Amino acid sequence: MQARRPIIGVMGPGETASAQVQQTAFELGQQIARHNWVLLTGGRNAGVMDAASRGAALAGGLTLGILPGTEAAGLSDYVSVPILTGLGNARNGLNVLTSQVVVACGLGPGTVAEVALALKAGRPVVLLQMSELAVQFFQSLTPNAVTAAETVEAAIAQIQSALGSLSD
Amino acid sequence: MQARRPIIGVMGPGETASAQVQQTAFELGQQIARHNWVLLTGGRNAGVMDAASRGAALAGGLTLGILPGTEAAGLSDYVSVPILTGLGNARNGLNVLTSQVVVACGLGPGTVAEVALALKAGRPVVLLQMSELAVQFFQSLTPNAVTAAETVEAAIAQIQSALGSLSD
Amino acid sequence: MQARRPIIGVMGPGETASAQVQQTAFELGQQIARHNWVLLTGGRNAGVMDAASRGAALAGGLTLGILPGTEAAGLSDYVSVPILTGLGNARNGLNVLTSQVVVACGLGPGTVAEVALALKAGRPVVLLQMSELAVQFFQSLTPNAVTAAETVEAAIAQIQSALGSLSD
Amino acid sequence: MQARRPIIGVMGPGETASAQVQQTAFELGQQIARHNWVLLTGGRNAGVMDAASRGAALAGGLTLGILPGTEAAGLSDYVSVPILTGLGNARNGLNVLTSQVVVACGLGPGTVAEVALALKAGRPVVLLQMSELAVQFFQSLTPNAVTAAETVEAAIAQIQSALGSLSD
Repeated sequence: MQARRPIIGVMGPGETASAQVQQTAFELGQQIARHNWVLLTGGRNAGVMDAASRGAALAGGLTLGILPGTEAAGLSDYVSVPILTGLGNARNGLNVLTSQVVVACGLGPGTVAEVALALKAGRPVVLLQMSELAVQFFQSLTPNAVTAAETVEAAIAQIQSALGSLSD
Repeated sequence: MQARRPIIGVMGPGETASAQVQQTAFELGQQIARHNWVLLTGGRNAGVMDAASRGAALAGGLTLGILPGTEAAGLSDYVSVPILTGLGNARNGLNVLTSQVVVACGLGPGTVAEVALALKAGRPVVLLQMSELAVQFFQSLTPNAVTAAETVEAAIAQIQSALGSLSD
Repeated sequence: MQARRPIIGVMGPGETASAQVQQTAFELGQQIARHNWVLLTGGRNAGVMDAASRGAALAGGLTLGILPGTEAAGLSDYVSVPILTGLGNARNGLNVLTSQVVVACGLGPGTVAEVALALKAGRPVVLLQMSELAVQFFQSLTPNAVTAAETVEAAIAQIQSALGSLSD
Repeated sequence: MQARRPIIGVMGPGETASAQVQQTAFELGQQIARHNWVLLTGGRNAGVMDAASRGAALAGGLTLGILPGTEAAGLSDYVSVPILTGLGNARNGLNVLTSQVVVACGLGPGTVAEVALALKAGRPVVLLQMSELAVQFFQSLTPNAVTAAETVEAAIAQIQSALGSLSD
């Protein structure tokens, strides 16, 4: 069998994501596809989910979307494989379990839940352009599993490093 | 955007699947890949899940596996995109919601639950080489959503017909 | 500690339940409460869920309702402890895992999924006033875990017998 | 019908809870029962879940436990109504949806996920004896839905106030 491609989860707010956060998510999605990784998001056509999926899809990548509902309504146009869960916010758990590395980009209650569940499940987490307060808070929970990145390039390097550790 | 490829779910027993059911599942997976559809199974390296995934993967197809656990242990080698749910048997709901058409191949309690949930969610169901008793029972529940097929070719034709109706 | 009271799950259709099935569910709920067992249903104010809860509540029993949604809308007035899951139909799994014995009363796709999941989880199942076809079908799946009852009294006796076996 | 009793969720770490946090959880459970509220926890026989359930049960209260597994293994002796979910950590969502008010007592990744999901679901949250960093962080997410309490008495007053607002 061909080796399985790593799945990188990008988590972040939907409707409340700022234009800058969306631009960052777009570039992150692009880079994830260029590294031949699979992108995973929450799949909706809003905010970080949509922007990261667009970046990855336009760069030719495979994009998974783990959706809260039972039908494809509200699905991002840039998700190539939609997973319909019907679980509402309980889908957050799947997002992080299915990802080998989780990147949080922008912050709202849903994203906080995903970072926390990732840490509980032992998945490495990259906090991208996050406030000092958020970084401090998450590092106080699980010091070694959380890194902070100021740029997309730094986030990609931290993903590579985390994937390297996982395959050791 | 490129059109999204249909996802076809193949459900059936794991460890208790007979050699004949596994052979049927293998050929069904092969045909699904040759029609350029995405194959979805429960993802474990046993029975119908493994056989269908092997058939599709060897024919060059994309194979999703929706797993019950939180780690990749027990994953079929032929699943290219594993979704780790951590939900146990509650993952059955995702299997059928995510599939545009569901094919049941062999029968055990888990497969019965999946067929029933598919009918509840309005997904068309193909019963492949199923006992008269099972066909009668499911058709008594929801007459118009269930068809029976004796061969893989007939099942493929019924999938095509169901996909055609969905896109009308 | 005081001994924990057994939880008996009563599963059946909502809006499509016939008047006779609802009357049976009402009497079953009543008897469950009189035996000092806790009643569990899907919690909605419709069909078997509402009728069984009403029977148990009016007889002074404790009534759990495991709801599909995130808010109390649609909740039966006769549920004393509502569990809001937000999981949609995936809540079916909780219904049967939480019950020591499952009674199916009336039949639709959701109830079939619950009976199948109960059998998969090793919970004893009583089929109350079910068609010959349904009884035959479920007994073909897991012969020893399914019994059929024609009256509420017979169902209660089968629950008692199943609880006795569980505590052996 | 008799009015339904409010359900108060108490969330906190299991094995890693300090003796002081457990003592606080015990007293909180006691007070919840004395106010005739139903106590909800994660149900395991460890840490805050066990201590709060013990406090409430010994004071004569009704105690729900929403468990991650499919069987009663690891269940607190002081849970009177165990809900077996089989969902692993995805049960966290049920804990907060089912509670009218959520109290976090001690902090670990699971508790952070629960507080975040509570805020996302619009449930009021009381942070009991939490670090300044944690209080600041959660208040930065959703300023009006989070209050901080230094004593069990203050937490009870905040629960009463939140319940009053809900019933307005």
